[in-house]
Amino acid sequence: MENTLYNKIANQIIKQIKEGVYTPGDKLLSVRSMSKQQSVSVSTILASYSVLEERSFVEVRAKSGYYVRRSPAKTYSPPLISQKTSAPRNVTKAQRIMEVIHDINSSNFINFASAIPGNDFPVIHQLKKTFSTVVRNKTFLGIGYDNTKGCEPLRKQLAKRSMDAGVLVSPDEIVTTSGCQSALEFSLRALTKPGDIVAIETPCYYGLLQLIEACGLKAIEIPSDAVTGMSIEALKLALEQWSIKVIISLPCYNNPMGSLMPDEHKRQIVELIHHYNLPLIEDDIYAELGYSSKRPRSIKSFDDKDQVVLCSSVSKTLDPGLRVGWVIPGIYQEKIEYQKFVSSVNVSRLPQLAVAELLSHGGYDRHLRLARDTYRHRRDQLLDLIDKYFPQKTRISKPQGGFVAWIQLPEQISVPKLYEDARNEGISLSPGDIFSSSNKYQSSIRLTYSNPWTVERVAAIKTLGNLVNSQM
Amino acid sequence: MENTLYNKIANQIIKQIKEGVYTPGDKLLSVRSMSKQQSVSVSTILASYSVLEERSFVEVRAKSGYYVRRSPAKTYSPPLISQKTSAPRNVTKAQRIMEVIHDINSSNFINFASAIPGNDFPVIHQLKKTFSTVVRNKTFLGIGYDNTKGCEPLRKQLAKRSMDAGVLVSPDEIVTTSGCQSALEFSLRALTKPGDIVAIETPCYYGLLQLIEACGLKAIEIPSDAVTGMSIEALKLALEQWSIKVIISLPCYNNPMGSLMPDEHKRQIVELIHHYNLPLIEDDIYAELGYSSKRPRSIKSFDDKDQVVLCSSVSKTLDPGLRVGWVIPGIYQEKIEYQKFVSSVNVSRLPQLAVAELLSHGGYDRHLRLARDTYRHRRDQLLDLIDKYFPQKTRISKPQGGFVAWIQLPEQISVPKLYEDARNEGISLSPGDIFSSSNKYQSSIRLTYSNPWTVERVAAIKTLGNLVNSQM
Repeated sequence: MENTLYNKIANQIIKQIKEGVYTPGDKLLSVRSMSKQQSVSVSTILASYSVLEERSFVEVRAKSGYYVRRSPAKTYSPPLISQKTSAPRNVTKAQRIMEVIHDINSSNFINFASAIPGNDFPVIHQLKKTFSTVVRNKTFLGIGYDNTKGCEPLRKQLAKRSMDAGVLVSPDEIVTTSGCQSALEFSLRALTKPGDIVAIETPCYYGLLQLIEACGLKAIEIPSDAVTGMSIEALKLALEQWSIKVIISLPCYNNPMGSLMPDEHKRQIVELIHHYNLPLIEDDIYAELGYSSKRPRSIKSFDDKDQVVLCSSVSKTLDPGLRVGWVIPGIYQEKIEYQKFVSSVNVSRLPQLAVAELLSHGGYDRHLRLARDTYRHRRDQLLDLIDKYFPQKTRISKPQGGFVAWIQLPEQISVPKLYEDARNEGISLSPGDIFSSSNKYQSSIRLTYSNPWTVERVAAIKTLGNLVNSQM
Repeated sequence: MENTLYNKIANQIIKQIKEGVYTPGDKLLSVRSMSKQQSVSVSTILASYSVLEERSFVEVRAKSGYYVRRSPAKTYSPPLISQKTSAPRNVTKAQRIMEVIHDINSSNFINFASAIPGNDFPVIHQLKKTFSTVVRNKTFLGIGYDNTKGCEPLRKQLAKRSMDAGVLVSPDEIVTTSGCQSALEFSLRALTKPGDIVAIETPCYYGLLQLIEACGLKAIEIPSDAVTGMSIEALKLALEQWSIKVIISLPCYNNPMGSLMPDEHKRQIVELIHHYNLPLIEDDIYAELGYSSKRPRSIKSFDDKDQVVLCSSVSKTLDPGLRVGWVIPGIYQEKIEYQKFVSSVNVSRLPQLAVAELLSHGGYDRHLRLARDTYRHRRDQLLDLIDKYFPQKTRISKPQGGFVAWIQLPEQISVPKLYEDARNEGISLSPGDIFSSSNKYQSSIRLTYSNPWTVERVAAIKTLGNLVNSQM
């Protein structure tokens, strides 16, 4: 690290933290006060604090300031994903996955399985008010079918927001959908035919596996790192070896690991799709829930040939019950728009108008700032709880955004047994095997940490830990 | 006709109408007054008036009484549909259809093309109020994903209403969808694989043709009568000759002809699907918009083996912008529900709750009574206008429900030219060729008559007539 002024200051503070001058939870001096105290410029202090933040010694809390992190020096072992790429195979997990889903839906479990937003954010009340306003003031009924692209006010807002992801598009280059899953479906159906091979990350969000199976496609699972996402080297080899028709990636806070693909990898993946002249479907659904101060760039932002199809929704940032999603289809727009028309004509108008209204008034950004902070705290608490109650050999991903974590239990643990035992204790979790088309991840689980750590939820993690330990 | 008392009275009144005692638009005596006047029972008079209604001499206006029809004796020549069944073929109309759709959406045409409800019904205001109430009083946000079947309050209401169609199901036997098109898609995808043959009516709603193409299926078009719908004889022959995997029918007020399949045919078609052990997809979307006093029974109501998959929505009765539809999938429920889950997980919650609320409060039935009356009047006005402005050899279907009519122009008319000419005059219509996968219906058009006959719309029909006549 360079020995610049801001680094010097940062190192001083780190020393103080290590020596206990500042203890976890303490607030640092405000930037302005520190600048006066040290007689240096505000921007130098800002740079120092950024260094501290990057190195996980402090965290920013919205509208409050910089705080010393609870476990500044602790390092977690991330899950190890086998770097062997297996041959393309048919996906046949449909029934197994539906059993798990039905199971979760049918009872009052302490839910760590569903990847849904936290239930305690004020944005829900704000959204409710927005709906009232829109119902009162906007024409949302009695005007027939919409343009196939979807509700224009929403597309305008989405076009504005895409700039944060480094994507410049006009509202007419966006097609709204009934959630991200629909966006993925329209894209996959438009870009493949049954029997085609698609490349996906592994572990992979099970809904995507189901979709691949429903489209009659074969999947080749590209090993993905718990920190940096899809392995570019493995992808390269797979592209050389197989006739891959579409690549699908969740680069920004992947589900289930929370990994973030570095920009350099994004650049490389774009080079590959240009070289092979392939479409890439980018699932961007968690990208706005990153814990660093800036929203990461999308893969699409590096693609000047418009071969990246970006799919997203507000299901993780606001509410999945809205069913408001979208696709930025690039050069495949005609085909993908057509899929939407054939499959459902339009998306329900009112939810689109309400989301547009919320996006236009800044309430969404305020919510995102709060959500990012909150989810980071909740992640840290999960890390602490796993550390406390699970066997020492447990490995856990440390998501940089979103609200799901991937936990690799010691090899001897049977997750099917753990899943059953947990059910009997009234606790739901996602078993690892549903995140692959092969028999991988028999000792892994995904846990959702979006909700507040109530006494009940903390106790449930302790119970889970006991169940795991009882198998050791 | 039997020479019973009620027939005698009916015949007397017909004589009076023919002699000009009653003139078109006159109100008959109320049932009670007529009963006193004739010294017969109220039920006898009701029976007499029913005869008059059946024979099109009078019409019922909701909450008002019986009125003499405007053109009591006039008979229209229905369109003639060729009774030749062609071999199964791939459907390849996608591009042509999208051109028409884009065309319609992109401009301010006087619209006779889109099959959307009339824009002047009070139910739209009522629905808006319902939305306000639901937004205020119901939890529709912040509760994660729904049961895959869909919103329970809506499914309860739909189960109640299905009884009108002769269908007894529990709420758990209904799956909500994003409109009827989605219901059809999930059903088709669940029940077929690419290359399969499906039997459809001809002419056939173009959205269904697109769906069949998107699913990679071949269609065999079964000739359909403008009054009685799909030819059972032709269907029988087709089933003998081809390996048909699914039959799709719109028995109640078919789009585009408005035909109504007689109950006896419904019974026969059910016998056929039992004999061949096939699923039948029944599109029920217009069934509640019949002009007779009773909602017709669905094909499903005759099916005790649950092989009929009933698809519907409120897009034609309330508003297509709601995207609230459903499927009653019978024995195929698991497969169809799975298709829904994979393709979009859930349907937007709020619109489902609002429709459930409206259904539970009687507002929907009041609206239906008004809509049926209104659409019948508007149909009659269309018939009169066609009679007045179109060449004598024009044949027109006389829909018994819904709000679209099929018009067969004299053979020498080129509809592509008419379509272009009409566009230049700012008038949109649906050209006949998009209602078939072959080159049929080059001289036919579909006109929507859901909206009020304003001076402008009346003038547009006159203009259309002139354009047709200019080709004679």
